Amino acid sequence: MGALRLPSSPLSLLLSPSTPILRSSPTLRLLRPSLSGGGGGGAPGRGGVSARSLTKDAAAAAAAAAAAAEGADRKPSSSSGYEGSVTPRSVDFNAWYLDVIASAELADYGPVRGTMVIRPYGYAIWEAIQDFLNVKFKETGHSNMYFPQFIPYSFIEKEASHVEGFSPELALVTIGGGKELEEKLVVRPTSETIVNHMFTQWIHSYRDLPLMVNQWANVTRWEMRTKPFVRTLEFLWQEGHTAHATLEEAEEEALQMIDIYTNFAYEQAAIPVIPGRKSRVETFAGANRTYTIEAMMGDRKALQAGTSHNLGQNFSRAFGTQFTDENGQRQYVWQTSWAISTRFVGGIIMAHGDDAGLMLPPRIAPIQVVIVPIWKTADEKAGVLDAVASIQQVLKTAGIKVKVDDSEQRTPGWKFNFWEMKGIPLRIEVGPRDVTNRSVVVSRRDIPGKPGKDFGVSMEPSSLVDHVKRRLEDIQSSLLQRATSFRDRLMNPAREGAALCNKIFLF
Amino acid sequence: MGALRLPSSPLSLLLSPSTPILRSSPTLRLLRPSLSGGGGGGAPGRGGVSARSLTKDAAAAAAAAAAAAEGADRKPSSSSGYEGSVTPRSVDFNAWYLDVIASAELADYGPVRGTMVIRPYGYAIWEAIQDFLNVKFKETGHSNMYFPQFIPYSFIEKEASHVEGFSPELALVTIGGGKELEEKLVVRPTSETIVNHMFTQWIHSYRDLPLMVNQWANVTRWEMRTKPFVRTLEFLWQEGHTAHATLEEAEEEALQMIDIYTNFAYEQAAIPVIPGRKSRVETFAGANRTYTIEAMMGDRKALQAGTSHNLGQNFSRAFGTQFTDENGQRQYVWQTSWAISTRFVGGIIMAHGDDAGLMLPPRIAPIQVVIVPIWKTADEKAGVLDAVASIQQVLKTAGIKVKVDDSEQRTPGWKFNFWEMKGIPLRIEVGPRDVTNRSVVVSRRDIPGKPGKDFGVSMEPSSLVDHVKRRLEDIQSSLLQRATSFRDRLMNPAREGAALCNKIFLF
Repeated sequence: MGALRLPSSPLSLLLSPSTPILRSSPTLRLLRPSLSGGGGGGAPGRGGVSARSLTKDAAAAAAAAAAAAEGADRKPSSSSGYEGSVTPRSVDFNAWYLDVIASAELADYGPVRGTMVIRPYGYAIWEAIQDFLNVKFKETGHSNMYFPQFIPYSFIEKEASHVEGFSPELALVTIGGGKELEEKLVVRPTSETIVNHMFTQWIHSYRDLPLMVNQWANVTRWEMRTKPFVRTLEFLWQEGHTAHATLEEAEEEALQMIDIYTNFAYEQAAIPVIPGRKSRVETFAGANRTYTIEAMMGDRKALQAGTSHNLGQNFSRAFGTQFTDENGQRQYVWQTSWAISTRFVGGIIMAHGDDAGLMLPPRIAPIQVVIVPIWKTADEKAGVLDAVASIQQVLKTAGIKVKVDDSEQRTPGWKFNFWEMKGIPLRIEVGPRDVTNRSVVVSRRDIPGKPGKDFGVSMEPSSLVDHVKRRLEDIQSSLLQRATSFRDRLMNPAREGAALCNKIFLF
Repeated sequence: MGALRLPSSPLSLLLSPSTPILRSSPTLRLLRPSLSGGGGGGAPGRGGVSARSLTKDAAAAAAAAAAAAEGADRKPSSSSGYEGSVTPRSVDFNAWYLDVIASAELADYGPVRGTMVIRPYGYAIWEAIQDFLNVKFKETGHSNMYFPQFIPYSFIEKEASHVEGFSPELALVTIGGGKELEEKLVVRPTSETIVNHMFTQWIHSYRDLPLMVNQWANVTRWEMRTKPFVRTLEFLWQEGHTAHATLEEAEEEALQMIDIYTNFAYEQAAIPVIPGRKSRVETFAGANRTYTIEAMMGDRKALQAGTSHNLGQNFSRAFGTQFTDENGQRQYVWQTSWAISTRFVGGIIMAHGDDAGLMLPPRIAPIQVVIVPIWKTADEKAGVLDAVASIQQVLKTAGIKVKVDDSEQRTPGWKFNFWEMKGIPLRIEVGPRDVTNRSVVVSRRDIPGKPGKDFGVSMEPSSLVDHVKRRLEDIQSSLLQRATSFRDRLMNPAREGAALCNKIFLF
């Protein structure tokens, strides 16, 4: 553990549970460790809550986090679209982040302090995350379902470290249908307690195991310092919950899910996350082990981007979730839970964005290609728009997400900046001369200026589709490569490795 | 209006907004009608709340609804699977409904009274509804997004009829992060108020219109009489919200969405709903017009299965949602909202189920075909399971949702009953003789006994796939036809038409 050299391929990042590291780990055998620190240092297990520096020691990191949080509630400079530029990252990373969110219309502030409205463009990124993970969850044997969001307050108190970790940040319903309620209801901050209440009714024998479910839902944590996507009072997530007959199976499941998150981060989001295990103090309130993926952001801070918990028998003992094993003995089930939230959208913004704005990996971009027609005369306009319509159709048919910006309110130059700020991976420019030559100009978002442009790309359908698909793949791997170099440079063991090792245990 | 002959094709059910009926309607011009009755008679606009009889007069309907509600909170007879039979519908329709929900593991009661856990099989039906509608919403220009669920109490009070309709059934958060809140927060019962708060910030000129969004979300209404899927304290739904420059556009949108719901009900759910307009007293609290689809259930009661509201300028005036029109004048936007909820799952159960249990239309069935292998000796077993595996692969490759039940705990006879109870449209039986003959037996869920069986269906892949696909289509149309005859028989104008006309205005 704590190896300083980081693997760069996601596939080699995780060891199977049968590897010596896990087998020899003493903590894995502790069934109910005292997790008294589980609730400290920010809310645990939120699929990402702590904003910590990978590059400084603990004290400096705390100072940096406080400084970052300071600007967190400031209003974005504009709530109604793009005004031509965003604050440079080097001037104020947090201001840049909020500017990008406002200008690209990713999210807005809700009327209740700390809440966020996820606007269509931001939500489409979340949908891309959902679409990919939902398939993976089902492929690995999980079923979606839905648990109620109102949890009797007494449930939260049943698992000692859980109540300690979560009680400071609960929202409570005390009035329903005009009447004071006899028992306060917790608006779910996470669902382990209600899940176990139901599992106890559904699980009878070993034949009912493993029980593997997931829900896509909203959750509420009363956070004092909020920041769009990264930390909000209400957020969206998926939470997986499983019950198994043995510790080994639960451990394997917890690792499988952090592996799925790791692969998603690498292959779809182009973020070279570092999977590892949380220190005791940052372990989820109620878990024996918390696995995490940590992502390097543009401000050199780490973002917890997803977590997977081996819950041991903590909740099954608290809720009496037992099964009859093959020998007729009653046993407590072994459990896991795992989550990724809308915080991941914030991670994508901060991992790839630059001073021109958002930069989206093609595989999760709601729009992969924007076509900007350029004309001066009415004559030119007709020919250009004709060509643009046919290019749009060709790309759409090939399964490429394409948008045409033919509005007449704005100049082509303004549109170039605008769609760059929105992070669209590729732009196709079509002017009168291109129509004559039956060719177009293709510009990459990730390489500014002339080096990122392909001139004279043929309009011939199959060759255009080939070109665009190849370029999108180039951008996808280039973003991953760039983020990986950035991460590795900062995590040079001679400089920063030691600090990281204090935070998580690497595989 | 009030025509007694009902069209049987969904395509002809809706008139365009330019038809005389709509143009001549005086109510459409009333901008803020007094909707004092809007909150009476059950919660309005929930994508279905009132349980009313199509076949009796108002007083009798109320008595019937009360009787139905009486058994609503009784626990299902078993929460852990199938015990061999369900209460016959003729004995007690409500008991039958609850038995089916428990036996088919569609849902369970949550720990808080009136809440429901949607189990994987029930949730998969909801996912089928989502998958279809989500595509239709996007095709018609709507974007998904997400609004926070906590709404300042003062928002609810801004639209007079809205507060009157909803205030009796609100859940209120009064404590957050351990502190009493200065302003109580409403857990959304619907989102018109918060949507308008945001629309007011986003809409500036006519160029920002139409603004057309949708969210998939949970909502809370503090209901006293609950029933799984049909009426629960928390439920899942989609709520569409749009803003337009003119009344005509808003009306067109409201009609378009009820048309999409109607088509979904007919073509996917095989439910011949009747679209129409709600009477004044049942119009959504805050709307000028509420369009509805009403479905006939097996107990001869009507279920409101989806609604679409023309909100006029009620909310835009209350929240100051204005735009600058092409002449530079400030105008209030015209709005719609529309919803379908998990109640629709209850509608599917009650529209098609019989005394053997659930009966699912193939297009929304999570499992379309179950394969039951039959063997006695170990020798037979190997051959049968081999054949079954290859059939499963063939059907799966053809895009058919197939499940094999090869468990050894249960007899084939038990499995037949079990999967019939779960409503699987088709069963394939494979025994040793079938393996020898390279053929299988295919049984339809909707036609009991021998008439529903095809013997000697060839195992040859393409012919088997053809057979299965054809049979699934047969079942789909047969369910719609059966439901349509049932509805039309009950709605014979000589007997019941007059009562129906008191409830909704037909197109």
